[in-house]
Amino acid sequence: MTHFHKTRRVRFADTDPAGIVYFPRYFVMTNDLVEEWFAAALDLPYRKIFEGGIRAVPLLNVSETFPAPSRLGDMLDFTLAVSRLGTKSFSVKIKAHCGGQARLISDQSSAWTRRDGGTLKAEAIPPEVRTRMEQFLENS
Amino acid sequence: MTHFHKTRRVRFADTDPAGIVYFPRYFVMTNDLVEEWFAAALDLPYRKIFEGGIRAVPLLNVSETFPAPSRLGDMLDFTLAVSRLGTKSFSVKIKAHCGGQARLISDQSSAWTRRDGGTLKAEAIPPEVRTRMEQFLENS
Amino acid sequence: MTHFHKTRRVRFADTDPAGIVYFPRYFVMTNDLVEEWFAAALDLPYRKIFEGGIRAVPLLNVSETFPAPSRLGDMLDFTLAVSRLGTKSFSVKIKAHCGGQARLISDQSSAWTRRDGGTLKAEAIPPEVRTRMEQFLENS
Amino acid sequence: MTHFHKTRRVRFADTDPAGIVYFPRYFVMTNDLVEEWFAAALDLPYRKIFEGGIRAVPLLNVSETFPAPSRLGDMLDFTLAVSRLGTKSFSVKIKAHCGGQARLISDQSSAWTRRDGGTLKAEAIPPEVRTRMEQFLENS
Repeated sequence: MTHFHKTRRVRFADTDPAGIVYFPRYFVMTNDLVEEWFAAALDLPYRKIFEGGIRAVPLLNVSETFPAPSRLGDMLDFTLAVSRLGTKSFSVKIKAHCGGQARLISDQSSAWTRRDGGTLKAEAIPPEVRTRMEQFLENS
Repeated sequence: MTHFHKTRRVRFADTDPAGIVYFPRYFVMTNDLVEEWFAAALDLPYRKIFEGGIRAVPLLNVSETFPAPSRLGDMLDFTLAVSRLGTKSFSVKIKAHCGGQARLISDQSSAWTRRDGGTLKAEAIPPEVRTRMEQFLENS
Repeated sequence: MTHFHKTRRVRFADTDPAGIVYFPRYFVMTNDLVEEWFAAALDLPYRKIFEGGIRAVPLLNVSETFPAPSRLGDMLDFTLAVSRLGTKSFSVKIKAHCGGQARLISDQSSAWTRRDGGTLKAEAIPPEVRTRMEQFLENS
Repeated sequence: MTHFHKTRRVRFADTDPAGIVYFPRYFVMTNDLVEEWFAAALDLPYRKIFEGGIRAVPLLNVSETFPAPSRLGDMLDFTLAVSRLGTKSFSVKIKAHCGGQARLISDQSSAWTRRDGGTLKAEAIPPEVRTRMEQFLENS
């Protein structure tokens, strides 16, 4: 298996009056990471998914743990792996470290959906996307 | 026990190109809710906690489930209860509904800390805060 | 004429490591104010404008001045007036005060548009919206 | 003179239900750009400025014009130049283009300040910062 990897510096806009990363910003960071993974590794830029308004990849649940705070200017190392690959949904595990210290552990599950009238209906992950996701599957 | 309760309309700034709430926005909403709970129910406005930079109430972990999407203009009913009250940390459960439908279930744990040099050190939740939190304790 | 008026407390999420409002947050606040003005005073909730993806009210330009910083917990008084009412565009002036001290002066111009294929085309502000906007026109 | 230059792709988090960049996001983008300029060109990372809480570089005013909308996936080319270099304040002009089309023109003025008790007091821009800023001065 392989990990998707990215670094991201903690910016002024990420931090709060306590001088540490404002925690909803971690979700913006992990969302950005998933978006880059889709574009760079799955060959599926979000523009392709969302334009026309036919498809969406909504989150079902997310769980995040913050072992230690991050500060303005810290360089975070993000890694992403696929922890579960279902027929119509998938889960990723994202970790962020700084200088060897764990800062964030995130588990997220998302559905593959198609818009059907006003609602989103789950449908099978397309085979070519599936094949690319498998490369990032843990313990494979 | 009692619940802390608030309504909040889904605004333009909360929604994404798929026309539903952009999920990091739920964390901004639940953060705002906790902040209002501190001010209105615990008699502890954040200004009091954060000014001087001595104290902080950092999140340890958060877990959120999104049973159904929320749309622009939806009126969300938020409720907050204390699910665990430790000596130096506490957990809250936040739920959001719209028209009887569950939209968000959030579990969060936070530490009570004091700044000691450059790091945050856990310390006991003050008794008067504890007493007020107890009113919101589930199954009490 | 009349002003549209709202109060809004400065929240934790609005402030930065310098302990003052992070300035892009003022734009979120003024956006929220315009959205509430549309719903409450113009009888035109954004859901009505944006659903279906036919209409949009994009900003053309904005100019903001920050006479003094705002801090966590400050209660800001916002007022909105229409400073110009064109056929296909309009301008609003938004001011925020706290305890009599000016904190924000914002001038914004927006276009009234309809989606035509992939682009937004300016069109006349509907008469019923125009009539309601006129009540907020300065020097009228 | 020289320009500070950066590219930045429009991400999902930047766009709104109308499918275009949500305008407060431009201010986050231009803030990020100024932050990178400080670190890369002025040798003054924000961590150095803000840690200890002694110094701040608050915005005095900002004016932005949006000649054309930007969409998810667009690659924006940002350039920054210094348009005015005062003793205790400075102004920058930021432009963003995409495929030769102007998307954003921003003029911002900021003060150089030191915290004096509870307030920010303007003080002279340090000579070594000034010298580096001069390289980006328009018409020089």
